[in-house]
Amino acid sequence: MSQAAAAPLPPSHREPRTERGRRTHRAILDAAAHEFGTRGYHDTGITHITARAGVALGSFYTWFESKEAVFRALVADLSAQVRDHVGPHVAAAPDGLAAEEAGLAHFLAFARQQKLIYRIIDEAEFVAPDAFRAHYETTAARILTRLQAAAAKGEIRADVSEAHAWAIMGMNVFLGLRYGIWDDSAATTAVAQTANSMLRDGLKP
Amino acid sequence: MSQAAAAPLPPSHREPRTERGRRTHRAILDAAAHEFGTRGYHDTGITHITARAGVALGSFYTWFESKEAVFRALVADLSAQVRDHVGPHVAAAPDGLAAEEAGLAHFLAFARQQKLIYRIIDEAEFVAPDAFRAHYETTAARILTRLQAAAAKGEIRADVSEAHAWAIMGMNVFLGLRYGIWDDSAATTAVAQTANSMLRDGLKP
Repeated sequence: MSQAAAAPLPPSHREPRTERGRRTHRAILDAAAHEFGTRGYHDTGITHITARAGVALGSFYTWFESKEAVFRALVADLSAQVRDHVGPHVAAAPDGLAAEEAGLAHFLAFARQQKLIYRIIDEAEFVAPDAFRAHYETTAARILTRLQAAAAKGEIRADVSEAHAWAIMGMNVFLGLRYGIWDDSAATTAVAQTANSMLRDGLKP
Repeated sequence: MSQAAAAPLPPSHREPRTERGRRTHRAILDAAAHEFGTRGYHDTGITHITARAGVALGSFYTWFESKEAVFRALVADLSAQVRDHVGPHVAAAPDGLAAEEAGLAHFLAFARQQKLIYRIIDEAEFVAPDAFRAHYETTAARILTRLQAAAAKGEIRADVSEAHAWAIMGMNVFLGLRYGIWDDSAATTAVAQTANSMLRDGLKP
């Protein structure tokens, strides 16, 4: 993996330091998720976002320098939302394989709540390719770190590598698309159990 | 899976019946792959495609009714190219697990040759969402069919299901992005072997 591409993106927006600033910043990001996720990047104007957020244009520019800046901040924010939603369940699991199952089950639940996340992250491939790549490189690195920790404890095979992390991430992304976004009729825990049984024991008879 | 969504898309272009027609049709699709893959859908005009293909505008309209029609035909064509490139290697493998390994190794090699394929298929999510969905539903159905055939022969576990097929497809797509498109320094066979060893035996110590 290119270390440069995996490094954090340069800041293009300011971080709020007061509670009031934090609320405005959050309202802008939530409005941006709705507008970019439903209209798409090109058909979204900054005024669509400020109108939905109920903030003045000046407030927008206090925090973000441009439409592209708020889009990039949104991709990083959604990436962090997944991490924060899934992380505690992964951390609470009894071992490394149970952690992957909990991670997938809660990712599926998150995708069902935040159905716009796929459209936004996927559009980043075209609008902000470095943010798209950083999202996946950061996520894969996080998976690899927990696989290596589980391997060190003897909970999973010792030879886990970057390719294992990318394989698991891809599995989760496509199960999320199929059972989170396109059709949410299956139980998230049943899908996670099926995938985890394959991850645990493999496909051998 | 929704059967309606998995059904073939309605034809929006004619199929050539003569050798000369076939060559022109192929030249248009290859030119379309280059233009859509490098400029993106919105910045590509039909005249960019005809200029690159070296065909008259009238010839274009003999085969395709619009820019959207050629884009949709291209997504279906790339989907078929993957199937035709990978299929013989999958069919020649000694058993179901070796077939998945061969499939992944040859998919990685194909992605390295046709690096624009990800951009085109991924842009279909926005330009032709039904073609995007049909591509993945068709691919997953093909994987499930071969898993079920291998299970019937006792080569892999008997309980394989749609979720296994989507998990394997996701694994392959993300390994293709990481080791096919973004960084092609690793040996495709080594990546496929690592992923297949996980698929075969799982992650247990």
